[in-house]
Amino acid sequence: MLYEKTSTSPVNIAVIKYWGKRDTELILPTNSSISVTLSQDQLQSKTTIRASPKFTKTRLWLNNVEELNLSNNARLQNCLRATKKLRKEYEDQLSDEIGRDNVIPLSTYNLHICSENNFPTAAGLASSASGFACLVYTLSQLYELPISTTELSKIARQGSGSACRSLFGGFVNWQMGTKQDGSDSQALQIASSDHWPELEALICVVSDAKKSTSSTEGMQNTVKTSPLLQYRINNVVPERMKFMTDAILRKDFNKFAELTMKDSNQFHACCLDTFPPIFYLNDISRAIIRVITEYNNSTGKPGEYKAAYTFDAGPNAVIYALKQNIPDIINLISKYFPPSQNNLNYFSDPYNLFSNESEKIGKLPLPNNFNEDFIHIFPNDSIKQILHTRVGKGPRLKSGSNDSLLNSDGFPKNLKS
Amino acid sequence: MLYEKTSTSPVNIAVIKYWGKRDTELILPTNSSISVTLSQDQLQSKTTIRASPKFTKTRLWLNNVEELNLSNNARLQNCLRATKKLRKEYEDQLSDEIGRDNVIPLSTYNLHICSENNFPTAAGLASSASGFACLVYTLSQLYELPISTTELSKIARQGSGSACRSLFGGFVNWQMGTKQDGSDSQALQIASSDHWPELEALICVVSDAKKSTSSTEGMQNTVKTSPLLQYRINNVVPERMKFMTDAILRKDFNKFAELTMKDSNQFHACCLDTFPPIFYLNDISRAIIRVITEYNNSTGKPGEYKAAYTFDAGPNAVIYALKQNIPDIINLISKYFPPSQNNLNYFSDPYNLFSNESEKIGKLPLPNNFNEDFIHIFPNDSIKQILHTRVGKGPRLKSGSNDSLLNSDGFPKNLKS
Repeated sequence: MLYEKTSTSPVNIAVIKYWGKRDTELILPTNSSISVTLSQDQLQSKTTIRASPKFTKTRLWLNNVEELNLSNNARLQNCLRATKKLRKEYEDQLSDEIGRDNVIPLSTYNLHICSENNFPTAAGLASSASGFACLVYTLSQLYELPISTTELSKIARQGSGSACRSLFGGFVNWQMGTKQDGSDSQALQIASSDHWPELEALICVVSDAKKSTSSTEGMQNTVKTSPLLQYRINNVVPERMKFMTDAILRKDFNKFAELTMKDSNQFHACCLDTFPPIFYLNDISRAIIRVITEYNNSTGKPGEYKAAYTFDAGPNAVIYALKQNIPDIINLISKYFPPSQNNLNYFSDPYNLFSNESEKIGKLPLPNNFNEDFIHIFPNDSIKQILHTRVGKGPRLKSGSNDSLLNSDGFPKNLKS
Repeated sequence: MLYEKTSTSPVNIAVIKYWGKRDTELILPTNSSISVTLSQDQLQSKTTIRASPKFTKTRLWLNNVEELNLSNNARLQNCLRATKKLRKEYEDQLSDEIGRDNVIPLSTYNLHICSENNFPTAAGLASSASGFACLVYTLSQLYELPISTTELSKIARQGSGSACRSLFGGFVNWQMGTKQDGSDSQALQIASSDHWPELEALICVVSDAKKSTSSTEGMQNTVKTSPLLQYRINNVVPERMKFMTDAILRKDFNKFAELTMKDSNQFHACCLDTFPPIFYLNDISRAIIRVITEYNNSTGKPGEYKAAYTFDAGPNAVIYALKQNIPDIINLISKYFPPSQNNLNYFSDPYNLFSNESEKIGKLPLPNNFNEDFIHIFPNDSIKQILHTRVGKGPRLKSGSNDSLLNSDGFPKNLKS
């Protein structure tokens, strides 16, 4: 009998941003946040976990390279410890019911864990959220834990804060909670992935010369040194959480867009108010903001938006828009941030928007009333790739015979040496 | 008899930033600010004003090009109206004392005003402060107004807010005031130009592709849309005003530097929190911040600083430092932001720091413990010019026979057609 499960988990992109922990061990945030889960068709983590009494120790391969010194990885250990503890409780309970001899003592077995992302780490897209969500979800399946997804989110949160949001599809609220032990800091679904099918997303992968400050390190410097963050936490976010939830439930794109852009801007403002300051936006990010701002201005109606940008701890832009405006936006982005001739990954058009006329990308006419006075064309490959994606579902169990990432001996099928 | 005066006025660079008006007509700010007046040896405005009954209208030449439609220039008219009114009162008072026939009715004469900057407008250095200070100071001299500099600052403020600070040398406090009529919104000197002779400044003139949002327009958008600005105004600036005044009086460079950098960062954070966001810092500005941060880190002592950056409404950096550290900083800046071979204006070394070894600029060894891991060398002329300057004096009356900018007919000597 093989004790193994494989599952996949999605990436999520916050529209009300998480930045700052009030407890760095338990990963308890200084404010609540809201995210949109993106389709796994474009971006996903996949994890296979096998438990066996034959394994001499627990081992982990990330993108087919073994991670060493797992005992020093406190966040991983948090997730393993918490799920094993629940498994042990479950085993004890089962033992009472059906007798200990009939219960598989998985909680005592070592694990082989193999995890991959279907997107390049080099893209700078946050993979820790989907990765830890996938780890914890796969463990819960392997251990057959009798708990809700919201309960599970409290464990994923201890791996990577925003991982708790990747356990749900659709639109997700991570309630900061107020308890010291973190028992009320958890994710809840606001609406499922089919609630607002018109909402889509474009991810613009931006070139950047140098690695920026890690978010783990950066956010605590902001907590320590930014007076503005304290105001944001106490006076701005609580109201925005309410308005954003409402905008999502009402499918009010104008309000959704306004709040998304304002909250991205304010998060980066707090990074700048950090001492020394943290910069995640570069000149290309700024220019994307300008293009989207002018695109919104082209409606001529203040408060009416056709697109919303948001940026996490890096220069990549995520642009949310309604389906009907996506071709316009791809056209604008590819006009001002064109690919080089060799760049075959620039835009793969997964939903066939430009079928039979893909040569026209970046060459369609500008939207009416689009003011390009302060916009110039950037050097080729300033944006390396545009990913078109949608709102997606939460983690999925994979039961196909070829889905496992481990071979019969329990080692990665695609091990890199 | 020729009724004419010529004077010069300095530039000032704020260390506690002014951003936002509570009254846009009277130019009353939403917070107090503190600036350092820079030496006129490097940067100054010069203005000649002649009053004559023969002039058929009041005319103004800016850098030897006539400004047309003066009546539409509300800020200029504010300054002319206010000084003329004081002149009229003075004439009336004199008339009572010595008889109206013995008083020159200058308040009734039209004016020819000629104003020049000794620095290129293209450099993007704020010239409105020095220009309006010079206008108002020269008028006060021409009209022989019996008022204090602080009284005069209330008139200069109505031309350009920060102009009120350029009426004093040294270190200047612009008190925001609380009265609706602006009668208590005025500049006061904290310390004179010889108070802290070790303090010097470097201005890095940064290349920028596109013109940014004007500060007049930008700041009101921030007032309208940034929640963080309101917090800054009410809760951050009042305390910083006290600490900065104290740091200047005690000549405490560490505290001066920390507050200067934090306040520049927070001003730009509020620009980013504006909707749509305003960006003045570009990738070169960010890299300058990184170089200065690493230079400060090289001391190995947290809270000990060797340099402080500050940025106004544009990408140019002003770096304050004590005299002994200036050569290090010029060396660092010119290493990472080198000039092209043709760029003869890059650094003129007015104080002979690199005498006989100017070839070594940018090639001196790095300071001890300087970490250049995340710093790379920018393309030539990313910084076009480094100006080395000092704390300087306020406006000066020029009485030399060649100082006038007007010829005997009252027209600019160097008129551009």
